[in-house]
Amino acid sequence: MLIVTSAQNPTIKLIRSLDDKKHRQEHGLFVAEGRQVLERARQEGWEPAYLLATGHAEPWGKAALIQLDERVMGQVSAQKNPPDQIGVFRQRWTDSVKPEGVWVALEDMRDPGNLGTIIRTADAAGASGVILACQSCDPWAGDCVRATMGSIFGMPLVRLEQKAFLSLLKEWPGESVGTHLKATENYRRSYAAPTLLVMGSEGRGLSDEASAACSRLVRIPMKGGAESLNVAIATGLMLFEAQKL
Amino acid sequence: MLIVTSAQNPTIKLIRSLDDKKHRQEHGLFVAEGRQVLERARQEGWEPAYLLATGHAEPWGKAALIQLDERVMGQVSAQKNPPDQIGVFRQRWTDSVKPEGVWVALEDMRDPGNLGTIIRTADAAGASGVILACQSCDPWAGDCVRATMGSIFGMPLVRLEQKAFLSLLKEWPGESVGTHLKATENYRRSYAAPTLLVMGSEGRGLSDEASAACSRLVRIPMKGGAESLNVAIATGLMLFEAQKL
Repeated sequence: MLIVTSAQNPTIKLIRSLDDKKHRQEHGLFVAEGRQVLERARQEGWEPAYLLATGHAEPWGKAALIQLDERVMGQVSAQKNPPDQIGVFRQRWTDSVKPEGVWVALEDMRDPGNLGTIIRTADAAGASGVILACQSCDPWAGDCVRATMGSIFGMPLVRLEQKAFLSLLKEWPGESVGTHLKATENYRRSYAAPTLLVMGSEGRGLSDEASAACSRLVRIPMKGGAESLNVAIATGLMLFEAQKL
Repeated sequence: MLIVTSAQNPTIKLIRSLDDKKHRQEHGLFVAEGRQVLERARQEGWEPAYLLATGHAEPWGKAALIQLDERVMGQVSAQKNPPDQIGVFRQRWTDSVKPEGVWVALEDMRDPGNLGTIIRTADAAGASGVILACQSCDPWAGDCVRATMGSIFGMPLVRLEQKAFLSLLKEWPGESVGTHLKATENYRRSYAAPTLLVMGSEGRGLSDEASAACSRLVRIPMKGGAESLNVAIATGLMLFEAQKL
């Protein structure tokens, strides 16, 4: 066990540098804060590289346990009210998409908070995993991990370049269903299994290429003044419809 | 027209102070950024107190037009890519709840981003308005206004203290429907009109008092590992179910 009283400690400096995507990629690590979230990680069989704690912490596999005072914890934590435990984990990507159940594919997702909420919702709906296609943002960013409320440890995450993404849409054995503002078919229907729900980016919606590659396009109707839904809300509606929850 | 080249200008200082809830309340003002959002304000018959622009701006009622350079605009804007127009508007609360259509009531909503997303979703679903009950956060905060994507100008907002909130739930002429993790009835059903959808806070869910005052409690089923849904997602599912969209 290491006892740290200064934010200048090299390990603490490394962990603080993980705020930055460049450093997260370089080290292949990410940060998850708070007991409840760490409990989910434990249930899902994850093991942190570092476990930071202000009080007592049980040993957790081979995790390097670092004891901090609250002041240093406050400097590591991104939250106003720092937690008493923080875990630093190795990023874990899933290599391939097993076409069963319901998958969510996100094209050029930009906002980490939206991404985190989508991962959490996919988990709640019992989805098989989430595909981050094209230029989608980093799921290991603090804002995303926080918004998942622990679901980051429960949802397989797959990265796909545009070409592989478009192939997946075309070759998907069940229905690949794009949500599109200009589609005519209502989203409330049965979907053939396995189902791939395809969502576009916040600003632009689904690209023409992805729309053309889907086996079906549906529309979530709106009756008010808003021009569109937040993408996490739209994904939630699609997930609960596809899963008949 | 006023031309401003310094962030030290008293009007600019006043507008920048609106980041802070205390100053928003003191002046009764709030800030909305970007052309598209301002267009919605115009359509809904709002008129800003101040209109800040880096380029040409059409006169807008009695709004004081302030011409800025991009540097000062960057200091006023909360966004990484500052817009070319910002409007400063008087806060507008609706005094009473007219029980018709579908209303959303939020108890102790804490996160401005969630609140903004809910206002946007309520607008998209054609709800009659949003009630901010008990200790709910400030809808005029920048994070909330931004998340509404202009719907802040289209949705009636009503503030209620706990006592008035509980009375409203009890005396609601149609169904007042609380969403509760421990309810047994599935949320997918018909709701008697007018419908009041009642959502609890992010951390704690609906209070015992509010749960007891609802005419019905329903549950959104989950089949995955997540313990709960984000409150904006849950509200979206309820709204689209109640509106049969």
